Formats: sequence, structure tokens, C-alpha cells
Amino acid sequence: MQIGIVGLGRMGGNIGRRLMRGGHQCVVYDHSPDATDALVKEGAAGAKDLGELVAKLEAPRVVWLMLPAGKITEDTLGDLSKLLGRDDVVIDGGNSFYKDDIRRAAQFKEQGIHYVDVGTSGGVSGLTRGYCMMIGGEDDVVRRIDPILATLAPGRGDIPETPGREGRDARVENGYMHCGPVGSGHFVKMVHNGIEYGLMQAYAEGFHILKHKDSKELTENERYDLDLADIAEVWRRGSVVSSWLLDLTAGALAGDGSLDKYSAEVADSGEGRWTIEAAIEEAVPAQVLSAALYTRFRSRDAESFPERMLSAMRFGFGGHKEYPVK
Amino acid sequence: MQIGIVGLGRMGGNIGRRLMRGGHQCVVYDHSPDATDALVKEGAAGAKDLGELVAKLEAPRVVWLMLPAGKITEDTLGDLSKLLGRDDVVIDGGNSFYKDDIRRAAQFKEQGIHYVDVGTSGGVSGLTRGYCMMIGGEDDVVRRIDPILATLAPGRGDIPETPGREGRDARVENGYMHCGPVGSGHFVKMVHNGIEYGLMQAYAEGFHILKHKDSKELTENERYDLDLADIAEVWRRGSVVSSWLLDLTAGALAGDGSLDKYSAEVADSGEGRWTIEAAIEEAVPAQVLSAALYTRFRSRDAESFPERMLSAMRFGFGGHKEYPVK
Amino acid sequence: MQIGIVGLGRMGGNIGRRLMRGGHQCVVYDHSPDATDALVKEGAAGAKDLGELVAKLEAPRVVWLMLPAGKITEDTLGDLSKLLGRDDVVIDGGNSFYKDDIRRAAQFKEQGIHYVDVGTSGGVSGLTRGYCMMIGGEDDVVRRIDPILATLAPGRGDIPETPGREGRDARVENGYMHCGPVGSGHFVKMVHNGIEYGLMQAYAEGFHILKHKDSKELTENERYDLDLADIAEVWRRGSVVSSWLLDLTAGALAGDGSLDKYSAEVADSGEGRWTIEAAIEEAVPAQVLSAALYTRFRSRDAESFPERMLSAMRFGFGGHKEYPVK
Amino acid sequence: MQIGIVGLGRMGGNIGRRLMRGGHQCVVYDHSPDATDALVKEGAAGAKDLGELVAKLEAPRVVWLMLPAGKITEDTLGDLSKLLGRDDVVIDGGNSFYKDDIRRAAQFKEQGIHYVDVGTSGGVSGLTRGYCMMIGGEDDVVRRIDPILATLAPGRGDIPETPGREGRDARVENGYMHCGPVGSGHFVKMVHNGIEYGLMQAYAEGFHILKHKDSKELTENERYDLDLADIAEVWRRGSVVSSWLLDLTAGALAGDGSLDKYSAEVADSGEGRWTIEAAIEEAVPAQVLSAALYTRFRSRDAESFPERMLSAMRFGFGGHKEYPVK
Repeated sequence: MQIGIVGLGRMGGNIGRRLMRGGHQCVVYDHSPDATDALVKEGAAGAKDLGELVAKLEAPRVVWLMLPAGKITEDTLGDLSKLLGRDDVVIDGGNSFYKDDIRRAAQFKEQGIHYVDVGTSGGVSGLTRGYCMMIGGEDDVVRRIDPILATLAPGRGDIPETPGREGRDARVENGYMHCGPVGSGHFVKMVHNGIEYGLMQAYAEGFHILKHKDSKELTENERYDLDLADIAEVWRRGSVVSSWLLDLTAGALAGDGSLDKYSAEVADSGEGRWTIEAAIEEAVPAQVLSAALYTRFRSRDAESFPERMLSAMRFGFGGHKEYPVK
Repeated sequence: MQIGIVGLGRMGGNIGRRLMRGGHQCVVYDHSPDATDALVKEGAAGAKDLGELVAKLEAPRVVWLMLPAGKITEDTLGDLSKLLGRDDVVIDGGNSFYKDDIRRAAQFKEQGIHYVDVGTSGGVSGLTRGYCMMIGGEDDVVRRIDPILATLAPGRGDIPETPGREGRDARVENGYMHCGPVGSGHFVKMVHNGIEYGLMQAYAEGFHILKHKDSKELTENERYDLDLADIAEVWRRGSVVSSWLLDLTAGALAGDGSLDKYSAEVADSGEGRWTIEAAIEEAVPAQVLSAALYTRFRSRDAESFPERMLSAMRFGFGGHKEYPVK
Repeated sequence: MQIGIVGLGRMGGNIGRRLMRGGHQCVVYDHSPDATDALVKEGAAGAKDLGELVAKLEAPRVVWLMLPAGKITEDTLGDLSKLLGRDDVVIDGGNSFYKDDIRRAAQFKEQGIHYVDVGTSGGVSGLTRGYCMMIGGEDDVVRRIDPILATLAPGRGDIPETPGREGRDARVENGYMHCGPVGSGHFVKMVHNGIEYGLMQAYAEGFHILKHKDSKELTENERYDLDLADIAEVWRRGSVVSSWLLDLTAGALAGDGSLDKYSAEVADSGEGRWTIEAAIEEAVPAQVLSAALYTRFRSRDAESFPERMLSAMRFGFGGHKEYPVK
Repeated sequence: MQIGIVGLGRMGGNIGRRLMRGGHQCVVYDHSPDATDALVKEGAAGAKDLGELVAKLEAPRVVWLMLPAGKITEDTLGDLSKLLGRDDVVIDGGNSFYKDDIRRAAQFKEQGIHYVDVGTSGGVSGLTRGYCMMIGGEDDVVRRIDPILATLAPGRGDIPETPGREGRDARVENGYMHCGPVGSGHFVKMVHNGIEYGLMQAYAEGFHILKHKDSKELTENERYDLDLADIAEVWRRGSVVSSWLLDLTAGALAGDGSLDKYSAEVADSGEGRWTIEAAIEEAVPAQVLSAALYTRFRSRDAESFPERMLSAMRFGFGGHKEYPVK
């Protein structure tokens, strides 16, 4: 089917490519003409602005946004609301906050425009592996865009079936799920990312313990010089902790095991924060997911004010000479 | 090659079976004659006690222990030290504490007996999938028992290769690794289990947040009734959080999604505790792994003394009527 | 000076009493006529509704609200906005969220009404000990109500002076502080409560460790039967962990040391949650404050869904018989 | 009464002084002759080695060790065991691990020597404020040294009495407690320090949130420039979070509020670690106390390996350009 795609970055460009390979017609626009041209060369129809994109689509239209969450998504949706019409569908495939979806969908609804939120996981490998998608929206609208979703999804592949799923929604086995009303797709994707933070931190802590097992603080016969790359690799093969994140870790460690080329300051996107806020709203304990987020905050703090406060107290009660260090 | 196996429970029995299928000769003993008989029917030579087991093995002998960590392993090793002789090899395939390995190996060494520790992951699926093994011991001794390890290991299978591993130890790709000196196998397995606790807890917290998204405390339009079984399934297919633990979760949720048949009191084995102790010895922060362990402690505490202390303080400063609730 | 007080509960009633003892004239109103009458008997002028309260005050008026945060505070402020006039001052002494203060102050400002937020600590002991107050608002307005603040505050008392404070704002030594613009009083009070959660949890965990030192799991000669009431008391006397919260703990333990009469389900008010949300907005790690909050969430969860998920995974990979327990 | 003191550092020297001011006779020894001389000038009898110290004491002797925990304490106790005789008392007033106490006491007991462990809190202020002491040992031996303990303790002072303590051990109100058998004094002191870590971290996190409330990431009208020194001071006066640690914080902040002169790398002594190990042995959750310890570990980690691992994974799945940062 025909679809408009707005935003042709790392994710949006590949989504267009995968759809075209699946036989869909794409009308594409990016604020960078080069990005638009690249897709045009691969068979897409290009647009020089949102107006042209909308004009090139047949009603009822389907427009997929793949933009950074926040102001640019908000502004683009605002512009689209003036261009689209009754029964058109706008899809936010980015990482928007689900409460923004709920607000926006209510606004679009006044014009008869349908809003669908799609949380998309799969990263840079999505073009070949397909995208795992979590979708929120009206039932018939999600059905209407099914051809697109089916093409983007990974399909069943050779992943073993889960026993006991007979009679359940078959789309799920193909890697996409209609989670519920508007916002629920991004909500599920948000928690997915929160879990991702926790998983990553669990591996990072464990490998830290393995690495420091050569510490001079330990007695010599309890000290080991362990090969982290080999450990990551062997765990990929039949162990309980095997996972895609471990596959990636094994790859990184197989190169320069010191990981010195990677930053010690770890960014966090909105999802990790929103997951904790959701936990708090629901009064659900989320110790591990919080700890994972806080580690990232800490990694970017060069000022160390709270640590200095501890030293100041230690000096106060114990005369511990914590200063001057410099 | 020929091997003696002591302990024929859930793990030991299947290890024997997998070895026999691989063409090895097994002499087996379990304190339960029924367990011994079962293996004998499948082709093993049986022994009615440790003495007979040792007698039926040709020197230099190889004996694999697969017993619960602690007293029974300790006692059996004590008995074996009186029966085995120079150049024999004893393998502890259980979940022993690595410092116990170091101590025992030094004792066996005085008699010329070699000690090898093997941390074994794979669980009940090991018979068919193979066992991921982490091995500590002398280099030539580990080489000597390689035929056994190679049979027990999963082999390369169809798991994609990790780029950049050219020229590295090929055993690792086959699912077993010689980690270093005695104790290092169990040390790596211990951290493996510590990570496992962290991963499990990350999923548990995330699904808890998903489940309570139907909470009456939330405003109605921000409330979703999410299908956890479908979410676990869709994440198996192309998402960043796919893993074997998620596969198991998807299976459990596909049955009775309430999970009511599973216990709310979660056991912990030694490895999770030892991992935290190792982190503390090395001065390595392990927030996530600790939180995962503490959640299990908390799950078994029916007394709630610390919570009552909080209520007592709240009553003290605020007159909050926390009592009597009953 | 003259002041109107709305809300005569545990806190509001005593605030009125302390002000009258300090020579101020109070016009009071509570939705319960009995509460109003009680204060009238002690010398206050009573009002049967907000209109009468405003009418009995001379312009420019000062009205202190001491109501539960949320809808009732919001509604009462809405009603007052229709009754008050230019240059009047309305004070929210409750536990409102500071962002609500900012919003409300902007609305009141359009009518020329001044809004002051006062975070009040001191609990049920405030009548005799005085109230520690954190204040947000315009500088001249906070100065205008200084007679009231000075009376409510504890004063210098016999608390030792902090060296190095020469030349600083003397109000602070008297126990009240003008923290900054509107909302900053409640913000500082909010973080105060967040810290309070953390302190309480630190004591609770420590006493839990002391209590379980009699555990049968420990070897006999490492087991102690410790007197928690005496420990709390001795720590009050010269130790580094002495505090008012410890004083309260010592009192509670000196009664029935089992604390059985106190609830095992611990409530949380908004401040603990808002503190974590503020930390996340600022990208500040708050591991301890979060853990304290989550312990309270956990204390109220009878369903134990995440724990059952852990058991389900354990059953999946290890065949651990976690079910059926019941 | 007469007492020997070994170790005249920050703590031991002042303990001698406080005892002499209380009318006791002190025989003192430090490996630094200058330290010994300083006490001699203040009235103590000096000894040039342990032998002379023991010789100058009348049997049955009492010797108080005030040395760093670990090798030096261990060695000195070994030397003393050869010099002391039946019915003498040796007191370890340092920060020894309680399991070491239990082991040592058993050894001394074979010679008829009594061993007492005293956990001592109070820090550099102890000379004037007195020392809060937690004591483990045999009942009659602890009674025998009561004159010393009573002098070292703070006494009742003007700290308000805790209601409900009628009929309880009066020593406790004077600031010293006989906790139980050998080791229990150091065990209680160990948990005291664990709690101390948690309290300190709670304040540090809270003040961090206050400090970063001026963050440019926040919208302008939700940003405050708060005076941390004044906040610490006002909380000392009637608030729920008042404590001695807060007094010390207020003092530090009243100087240079940036705390730049204090180290960002925070040391930890054994007690914090042993507290977590005790919690794990007892299966008691200790989330807050662990988090406090881990913050100190993290403060000393310049390598940032686990953070680099997170960045490596992020690069792996998302192409997030976390490198090269340098």
C-alpha cells in the first residue's frame, strides 16, 4: 500500500527501504534534501515539504513520522494537522511519551484524523532483521495499516514457538502487537527500554566483578586474570544468561577488551526516566530499573558534590583527612 | 573415554546420559540405588558405593561429582581422597564456592590428585541443548578431560558467530571455557548466576509496571489493560530485550497469566550471595545485583519488622495512625 | 498581628494555639464546627464559612491554609480567590506540590493577591517545640508576615550555634527560612521529607540486621540475642547516629519491642514520590531515597506478582519446584 | 582504677586523657615515643615496650588496646598473650571484626585471660562529649571494668529521658551498654557504622537535589538558587531530620559551600562492608546500606569499565555514537 514517511534518519530511512522491498509505495520527506534524494534513488517518491508529501498521497492517507521525540515531532504533527483530512491516519513511530500521544490523539480526533503510536525496537539491525513493534490505537485503524506492519515486522523466522499460545493473536508471533488504545504502544515500548537499562546494568556489574578479580587487594591465590571476551562468548552458548545484549557485548569485547574507545559517560533517553515515573505513579517498586538509570546519571557528574559532602561529614566526626587531596 | 559419576539427580543423571550417547563409558553411583539402577538400564556400569566405583575405573581415573554444594560434596570428596591415587582427576561439577575449590585442590595436590572445578549452566534442558561449562584447573589436566567436555558442551549449533574472534580458543565457540586456575570455573559460574538474578529482576519489575497499568489510582484515559503474555512474546521477536529468560517468561505467561500457581517466596542459592561478597571484596559497586538478591530475601520475610519500625517512627513524629491495623 | 486560619486539624489547630499564645489574633474556620468551636473557646474568633472569615479580617488580610494537599486545598484556594482582594496574602502551609504553588501564585497575581508557600516540619510536637518552616514567596510579603513566622518558629533555644554563620540571615537560627521565590518553600520541605524517608530506612535496615542476629541459620557462637531498645537508647548518647528519629525509635522500642502493634503496611505521602521525580528531572542519582520509597510500596503489595515471575523463570530453567506451595 | 593503654593516636590518646581527668591511673605505650611522652607529661606512667607496660601494672591487670583494626591489632594481641596471665583482662577498643573477637577470646580463654570488645563511637569530640560504648564480654568482667567505662561514657547530660525505660539497665542512659557475649560489642558498633553510611548518603542525595535545582535543564520558573548552608541550619531547628550528622553538615556548608576542599573520593572502613556481609548471612535486605557503600566504591573508580560497557552495548544496538569521545 501507499505510505508517506517523514524523517529519514537512521531509523526512518531503513523503514522506507524495508517497505519498498516489501512492495509498498513510499512518499518520503526529510528536512535534509540529501536524505530525501537517497531514498528517491532507491525508488521512493520524494517531497520537498510536508505539503507536497500530503498532496502526493491518495486519500485516505497514511503518514508515518520517524522523528526525535519532543519539539520536532510536536511541531511536525502540528503542521500535519493543518494538511491532513478526515479519515487520514498519522503514525508516530518515534519514542514519544505516551501521555503526549493521548493528548494529541484527542486533538486529531476533533478533525476526524486517526492517530496511531508505534514503539519500534530493533535498532540499526532492523532493515535486515525486521522491527519489533508495539502499537496503540483504534482497532480498525490498526487493521487498516496491517500490510505495512506485517512487512516491517521480522516474521516468525526460525525462533522456536512458545508452547501454549494456540488460539492467540497470530500477529504477535510475527513480531508486532496491538497493545491497546492510543498511547499503549509507546507505553509498552517505554517499559521495554526501562527493562533494557536494567539488563544492561546487570551485565555491566557482573563483568566489572570479573574484571577486578585480578585486584591487588585480593590474596594472590584468590586472584584470577579472566578473559572477558571468552566469558561473554561462552555464555552465549547454552547458558541461562544468553541474550541479544550479550551477543553485542561479546562482539564489543572481542575487539579491544579494554573498551577504552567507548565513552565513560552514558546518555539516557526519556524512556528510562518515564519508566521510573510510571512505577512511582503505580506505587510499584523498581529498584533495579532505578539503579540502572542512576548509574547513567552518575557517569555524567564531574562535580561530585554529594561525595564531597560525605567527606566533609567524615572530617567533621572523625577528623578523617579527606582534604586537601588536590 | 571412561568416567565415574557420583550423584545422579536432575543434573548428574542427564550428564551421564549425554556422555553415554556420545560414546563414553560411565561408572555411576548415587546414594539412592534406584537412581543408580536407572542409569544402569541405559548402559552405565553401576556401583553400590564409592569404593566399587573407584575399583571399576582404570587408573588414571576421572571422577565427576554432581552433588549439592556444601556438606555432602565436602564429605564425598573426603571419602574419595582416601580411595583415589596419584594422577587421578576429581571434578566438582556442582555449585561449590570457589574458595572451597582452592582449599580442596591444595589438599588433593599433596596426594598427587588433580582437582578440576566445572561450573555448569543449562538447567533441565542440558540433556538436549548441551551444557555451557566454565572450567578451572591445571592446563594439561583440563586438556586430558577434553573428550568429556566436548561431548557435554552444546557445540557451535546455529548460533551466529561473533565477528572478531578469529584466532581465539575454539573451545569457547563450542560452549566450554578453561577460565584459569582452580576455582576460576566456579567463580565465573557464580558471577553468571549473580547476573542471572539481576536480569530476572529487571524483567520482573518491568512486567510489574505493565501489569499495574490498570490501577484504579490512575486517571481512566491513562489506564491500560495489557496482555502480558503477548508482550513477552512480541519482545522475543526482534527486540533489544530478547533472551532465553524472556523465552521462559513468555512460556509461563502463556499458561495462566496470573502466575498464581508459582510461589511468592523466592529461594536463593549461594551464588547470588557470594557474588555480592566478591563485589565487596573488590570494592566494585553492584547495586542491581544486590537489589535482585534483596528482593528474594524480602519475599520470604513474613515478620515485617523493619516496616513496623517505619510505622512506629511515623506515629512518633506525625501521629500517623498506623496502628492498630489488625 | 491578625490572621485567618483555615483548617483546624492536628497541625492547623496547634498553629492557631501557638499564635494566640504569642499574642496574635486568630480568626478561624474549619468545615467541622466542633473544631472551630474548640479554638473559639481558647480565644479565637470563629467563622462559619470562608466568607465570614474574610469579612472578619481587616485589609490587607493574611489567611493561612492548613489543609490536606490536593483537591481540598485547590478548591478552598479557588473559593478564596473570589473573596480576597488586592494586596491580601494567602499562605499555603500544607504539603502542596511546589509546581502547584507556581501555577496558583501566577493566577492570584492577576488579582493582586500575594501567595506564600510554607513547608512546615515538626509534627505533633510543634505546639511546644515550635515549627521549622521553609518559606517561598516575594521578599517584602515574607517580611510582612514575619511576626507570625517568628512566633511559630522554635527560636534559638539551647541548640548549639554552628561556627562560621556570622553575618548570615538570623531568621534561620530561629528556625525559619525564606528559601526563594514561590514554590521554593514547599520544594525544600519536599526534599526534607525525601531525606526523612532515607534516614528512616537506614535505621530500619540496621535494626533488622541487629534483630536477626539470633537467626538459627547462623552458627551458635556467632549468634546474639540483642536488646534493641537498649541499643537505640545508648546510640542517643554520644554516638554519630544520634538524631530525633532515633529518639522516637528508642521510645517505640522501650515499649513493646516487637513493635507488633504497628502496621506492617507503610503509607507514603506525595513528598517522597515528588522528590524522586525531581531527582530524575535534574538527572541526580537518588538510590537511597528511591529504595526507601520502594520499601513502602513493597510493604503494601499483597499480590507478589513480580516474585511469582521469578519463581516461574526458576521453574523454567532449573525445574526448581517453586509450585505448588499452597 | 589502674589501666594500661596501648595505642595513643587520635582516639587512644584522648581516652587516656579522659580517664586521667576522671582520677584513673594510666600506664601508656605507643610505638612512637613522642606519643607516649605527650601522655606522660599529662600524668601517665610511660612504658617503652609492651613488657614494661605489663610489668608496671598490678595483677589482675586491665589493658586497653586502641589500634587500627587488622594486622597491628592482631600482632599486638599475640605479643600480649605471652605477657599477660590468669585473670588479666584485655580490651580491644578498636574497630575489629567481631568474628576475630570470638576467635581471639577463645584463644585467650585457654590461658585464663579475659577478652572484652568495646565498640567506641564519638570521634574526635569524645574527649569532651564522652564516648558512646558498645561492649561484648563476660558479665562479671564487664562489671569489673565498670569504673573505666563509667568515666569514658558521656553520662546522662541534658539529653531528655526516653519514656518507658523505667527498670532497665541504667548504664545505657549513661552512654554505655553491655550488649552480650564476646564480639557483640563490635557487632553492634559495626551495624552502627553501617547505619551511619546510610544516613550520610540520604543527606548527600537530598542536598544534591537541592543544589541542582538551579539546573539549566529545568524551565526557568521551576528553577531555584537555594542556599544549602541555610537549609542545613534551619533543619537543625525543630525539623524531623535533625541529627548530629546534620549539625556537622551545617558547619561544613557554612564555610565554603562548594565543599571544593573536600575529596570527591570517599574512603570506607571495614564496618560498612561487614554490615552488608552480615545482612547477607542473615538474609536481611539492606538496600539503603548497600547503596551507601557502593557510592563510596564508585567515587574511587577512575576506570569506568562498566560505564564503557553500557556505551558499547548502546553502540551495538542503536549505533549511538558514544565513541570516540576522546
